[in-house]
Amino acid sequence: MELIEELRRLLGATQVLCGADAARYGRDWTGQYEWTPLAVLRPGSTAEVSAVMRLAHAARVPVVPVSGHTGLTGGTVAEGALMLSLERMNRIREIRRSARTAVVEAGVVLATLHEEVGKLGLSFPLMFGARGSAMIGGALSTNAGGSNVLRYGNTRALCLGLEVVLADGRILDLQSALHKDNSGYDLRDLFIGAEGTLGIITGAVLKLVPAPRAYATAMVATADLGVALDLLNRLQEATAGLVEAFEYMPRAYMRRLLARKPEMRAPFAQEHDVNILVEIASTSPRDAHPREDGSIPLVTLLEETLFDLAESGAVLDAVVARSDAQRSEMWARREAAAEITLGQSPIVDTDVAVPLDLVARFETEVRVRIAALDPQAETLSIAHLGDGNLHFTIFPTDGDPVFKDRLRETVEDVVALLGGSFSAEHGIGTSKKPTMARRKDPVVLEVMRSLRKALDPEGILNPGKVLPD
Amino acid sequence: MELIEELRRLLGATQVLCGADAARYGRDWTGQYEWTPLAVLRPGSTAEVSAVMRLAHAARVPVVPVSGHTGLTGGTVAEGALMLSLERMNRIREIRRSARTAVVEAGVVLATLHEEVGKLGLSFPLMFGARGSAMIGGALSTNAGGSNVLRYGNTRALCLGLEVVLADGRILDLQSALHKDNSGYDLRDLFIGAEGTLGIITGAVLKLVPAPRAYATAMVATADLGVALDLLNRLQEATAGLVEAFEYMPRAYMRRLLARKPEMRAPFAQEHDVNILVEIASTSPRDAHPREDGSIPLVTLLEETLFDLAESGAVLDAVVARSDAQRSEMWARREAAAEITLGQSPIVDTDVAVPLDLVARFETEVRVRIAALDPQAETLSIAHLGDGNLHFTIFPTDGDPVFKDRLRETVEDVVALLGGSFSAEHGIGTSKKPTMARRKDPVVLEVMRSLRKALDPEGILNPGKVLPD
Repeated sequence: MELIEELRRLLGATQVLCGADAARYGRDWTGQYEWTPLAVLRPGSTAEVSAVMRLAHAARVPVVPVSGHTGLTGGTVAEGALMLSLERMNRIREIRRSARTAVVEAGVVLATLHEEVGKLGLSFPLMFGARGSAMIGGALSTNAGGSNVLRYGNTRALCLGLEVVLADGRILDLQSALHKDNSGYDLRDLFIGAEGTLGIITGAVLKLVPAPRAYATAMVATADLGVALDLLNRLQEATAGLVEAFEYMPRAYMRRLLARKPEMRAPFAQEHDVNILVEIASTSPRDAHPREDGSIPLVTLLEETLFDLAESGAVLDAVVARSDAQRSEMWARREAAAEITLGQSPIVDTDVAVPLDLVARFETEVRVRIAALDPQAETLSIAHLGDGNLHFTIFPTDGDPVFKDRLRETVEDVVALLGGSFSAEHGIGTSKKPTMARRKDPVVLEVMRSLRKALDPEGILNPGKVLPD
Repeated sequence: MELIEELRRLLGATQVLCGADAARYGRDWTGQYEWTPLAVLRPGSTAEVSAVMRLAHAARVPVVPVSGHTGLTGGTVAEGALMLSLERMNRIREIRRSARTAVVEAGVVLATLHEEVGKLGLSFPLMFGARGSAMIGGALSTNAGGSNVLRYGNTRALCLGLEVVLADGRILDLQSALHKDNSGYDLRDLFIGAEGTLGIITGAVLKLVPAPRAYATAMVATADLGVALDLLNRLQEATAGLVEAFEYMPRAYMRRLLARKPEMRAPFAQEHDVNILVEIASTSPRDAHPREDGSIPLVTLLEETLFDLAESGAVLDAVVARSDAQRSEMWARREAAAEITLGQSPIVDTDVAVPLDLVARFETEVRVRIAALDPQAETLSIAHLGDGNLHFTIFPTDGDPVFKDRLRETVEDVVALLGGSFSAEHGIGTSKKPTMARRKDPVVLEVMRSLRKALDPEGILNPGKVLPD
């Protein structure tokens, strides 16, 4: 094929993989999707990405960008398409310590960036399980969330500037390191979260923050979710906004966890409906410097706040981590979520968001409706509660796809009722397109389609993703 | 004219102003622009805005949305156009205290919102001089900045959801109260800051924060701007991110201030090159609750941090406010900026941003170049230093428009050299279109034009603004 020959001349033969060489790019790590790409391209520079797109655009051949292969929604399915891997564009171009910015290429692995900025006492506070493989390009393209969104925002909030290659190969230089820029439309945020359908992100200017010097971590039991939101608000006020994580593990989650992983201890002597993992963090020496009795002021602050709330009845029980080992034990319970939920079949897993004060209503309402359809189904929530983001999972008694879809639609009904989103942090990709088609406001879809048409009239960028056909 | 008759039937005759009745809408408060609108429309609901747009779209008549009339760039010039005023859409639809959100119409005055949420112990932390007149619709349409951006972000960062009426009257419902939503393209941020050229913002869901219980405010002198950035970073670390304002008033500003307003005292016994107004604020009782000796812990924290920095030579002098009166005196020096700069002629005023670590270079470089052109010109900076945002003003010796434009271009040259923006927080409107034409990357302009074309193919929404002709 002539295009492949041209691509080989452009990139060098070793950077154009076909057939068996390309096989490992032809599947999704979740095991849900498999495909055969036309070829896998590994350009080494923005100029090469641009040249690839000019060729592909002229030939009207679809191009699917891919970086760390850790997506959860089939966003890189590339049957018969060119896969454009950013993996070789993995340089951290610059870290500016006093300006607290990093200029990176799209193929930089998140954990690598963590490590490099950590050496300078700084932090890039995007934190999720796949950080050892996930790359910046994918994190930006999906506007990835994770466990520190409450304090630092999602990936979008951590990005100052972008470099993007458009469908026809033009390079869009939005590489600003500015905190304020009102010179025309906000193009940056349009490409972030667009899952590679509007352009290919090749580089970014990221915001860094000072690394915390002290953490205080606790497991807290509250009577109900309304109280939990009150607890969050009171902790935020008491600490002046230091809450980094506020993760919800309900009774059913704890039971399943302890059944599957008996080596993990129960956090409390008694079972509780609402268990919260809360973590606060501070850069301030006043919080981090141990007192004469060895206590860490930040830990004391958390203890005292929880004690006050226990007196008022808002908190039923609480355990504050006294060591790194205890902190790790608390986080291990949360991080076992994927292990104890995914991998079981049949399963209906979701990634929803509702307004903060409607999480309790979601939890009640969705269970009533699921029970009406499948009384024996087990259900499980694990949530970034501070963001209103729940991963609600159903283990139905019947794995029939039509039935599973009915259960999924039931969850969507409740989400719609509460003004929520059916995709909080994982994006749409391939797997949520049916939901997008049936749930998204038609005018919103029209506008999204018209933007896509304006930026990629031939529809060659990651076709078949995000927007319903 | 038939269209005007239709609009009268639609809105009621009293809500369609023509001729003398419309005159007060036909000028800019800066005195730079005057125009004669075709008519001024004052719809009372989103449905009415939608109906107006359907009529205007069918007739291909331009529509200029306007709310509080406090813009600084001629963004509402409306010669021969329909002006659509949002002033009657001034309801706060809902405040959700525990979720910390407010749902408002576009015509709500910023100060009114401050007052209403303040009654609940909450704050909407968008703060600038024109808050008594400026309305939410305009603040969103210009992505307004102000003095608390450092802590809370600009208007974009304070908005969760939007309601927008499109050029053809379709209503785009993006009224989410969610902190996470990855279901398709980020349309919200495209309309924010688009100055009414992509759609008319009729309502918004805004993020609220708990109101601070304590403030600590100081005037600080540092040796140079590099040290000032170090001071900011160290204050942020010491307070764990409590810095709300970090405003720069150089020697020339202080001299001009004290010459024009001798009733204001100099902050220090000696003159200094770099004078910083810093304010930290906290919601935490541990910071706000007075100690036995009457001291406020937050104030002590600021004092101790400044003392440490003085020992290392980073801080040359510092005065911490001991009372509300002293705090007000400090802010009065900053807030006199418009009074002591604008209103003088000839003048070249700018609103630029550069990366945080290049502010010092901007200050040096721009003065060298201006001095080469006009050695007797006085220059003056006043800056939101924590955002890298400077209002750099030149008082040239020659008011010739061509010469003034040459000076303006000289500032733009330095901004471009440093990777800055020629419009940090005021937007483009009419006045910065020439700069947009000569400075903005051509590919960026092409993409902006294609988005405009996709959303408003007839070009009837606020024509002649933002994008060069």
